[in-house]
Order: sequence, then structure tokens, then C-alpha cells
Amino acid sequence: MLNLFFIFMRDCIFCKIINGEIPCSKVYEDNEFLAFLDITPINKGHILVIPKKHFVNILDCEEDVLKKIGPILKKLSLAVKKGVNADGIVIGQNNGEYAGQVVMHLHFHIIPRFKEDGLKHWPKSNQEYSTKEMNKFAEEIRNNII
Amino acid sequence: MLNLFFIFMRDCIFCKIINGEIPCSKVYEDNEFLAFLDITPINKGHILVIPKKHFVNILDCEEDVLKKIGPILKKLSLAVKKGVNADGIVIGQNNGEYAGQVVMHLHFHIIPRFKEDGLKHWPKSNQEYSTKEMNKFAEEIRNNII
Repeated sequence: MLNLFFIFMRDCIFCKIINGEIPCSKVYEDNEFLAFLDITPINKGHILVIPKKHFVNILDCEEDVLKKIGPILKKLSLAVKKGVNADGIVIGQNNGEYAGQVVMHLHFHIIPRFKEDGLKHWPKSNQEYSTKEMNKFAEEIRNNII
Repeated sequence: MLNLFFIFMRDCIFCKIINGEIPCSKVYEDNEFLAFLDITPINKGHILVIPKKHFVNILDCEEDVLKKIGPILKKLSLAVKKGVNADGIVIGQNNGEYAGQVVMHLHFHIIPRFKEDGLKHWPKSNQEYSTKEMNKFAEEIRNNII
């Protein structure tokens, strides 16, 4: 199991960026996190924030790293907003192939938004609940909190 | 200044949900956070996670609360994934009107995604950097980290 984990890390493009095998436009680094420009930005100034330790996504991330995510997202969101003079900031994080995750190393997108950028990141909701259905969904989620 | 803050909170729909003035389909509550179903879900099972203390968004959120965000997002993402049998989870958080933030009380979206849901949350990037430009953007962001 341990061997499989190291094989996975060896082929991980973000682990290679962390190790310096692949270059990046670094904006921030500390002992546990690295942040760099996304090379295919939604808007210019779009960065990725990753832990140096390899986790697939937030679902398998360990507690010590999780606790540092909020503070670092705030720090870097403020820096992106000021640095590129953005009107707003979107933070996004995708878990799993069917959620749009492409690189299987936990990463947060910090995306600068501008008044006139014309981006629509979600369609208008066309989903409606009945009260009964809403109660059922809430219950199913509550029952699965561990 | 303090008075203005309380006036703002008084009119905040999420503060009213926290106070029980407006009902919600609750999925989780502790001393500092509340999570409930979004009534206009992107997919059914879409929840909102909010701190009970009023912050506009992540940019003005205080350190103690920030540290708890990562762990709670993991806990509730796992619960949504299992509870609605999702194929993936998207976490999103919008900061400011021009980033799509509608309610001005810090909230995280946890959105279940399904193999065949047909959602495309961002257009394909049509932004390209020259190397010089990339260096400039990275430098501007680095210079604004505090």
C-alpha cells in the first residue's frame, strides 16, 4: 500500500512542481504550502494553492493540513485581489474526476473576477425540492456525518 | 462603526437563519458553524456552510474561524458525498458581488456532482500569458502578500 502511494506521488505533476522537477510561476511558499499561477487561467492572476504533502483531494486530507487551509486561502485571496486589482475573488476546489478535478493532488483555485469579465460559473438552478424531498435529503446528509 | 455592523447583521438573511427567525433544512450545527440545504441547489443535496459569527466573506474572516473551515468542509463534503451518493464534490466560495456572491455573509457551497449531470462550471480558458506577463503577474501577487 505504501509503495503504491509513492508510485502515485512519483507521477504526480504537482509533486514534481514541489520537487522542482517542473517549473512554475511561484507566488508563495512555506514549509507546507506552495502557490503558483495556473498556466490556463480563467482570468489572469488565477493561482493554485497546494499542500506539499500529497493528498488526492480534501476528502483524504489530514487534520493538521486542513486547519491551515482557511488562513492561507484568506492571505492569498487578498494578495491576488490587490495584486491584479480584481473586483472579486472566487475560491474553488474540485473533488474527483466527475467534479472536474484534473490533477489528483489537492488544490484550491483562487480566481480573480472582474466586473466585466462575463463569466457565469454555474447555470441558474432548475432544481426544485418538495418539502418532503428536502427533509429526506437533509436527513440523508445528517445521517452520514461522522 | 459598531452600530453599522449590527444594523448590517440585523438585515442579513443568514444571521436570521442562525437566530431561528427564518427556517432552514439543517444538516449540521455546532457552536460556531451551521450547514443547511441551499433552496436553489445546483444539484439536490447542495449545502451551504456558514460561520455563526457574521463575516462578509473570507477576506474579513478572523483567524480562529478560518482555522476551523478546512476540517468542517472535509467532514460535510464526506457526508454530502455519501448521503446523496455523489460521484464528486465541488466546493465553492465567492467573495464580492462581482464574484457572484449574493448573500453578504461568508458561506461555502458544497455541491454534489454526478457523472451525467452535464454541468460545466467554467468555460475553457482562452487566456494566454507571455513569459514576461506571467512573471509580472506572479510578482504583483507576491508583492501584495501580507
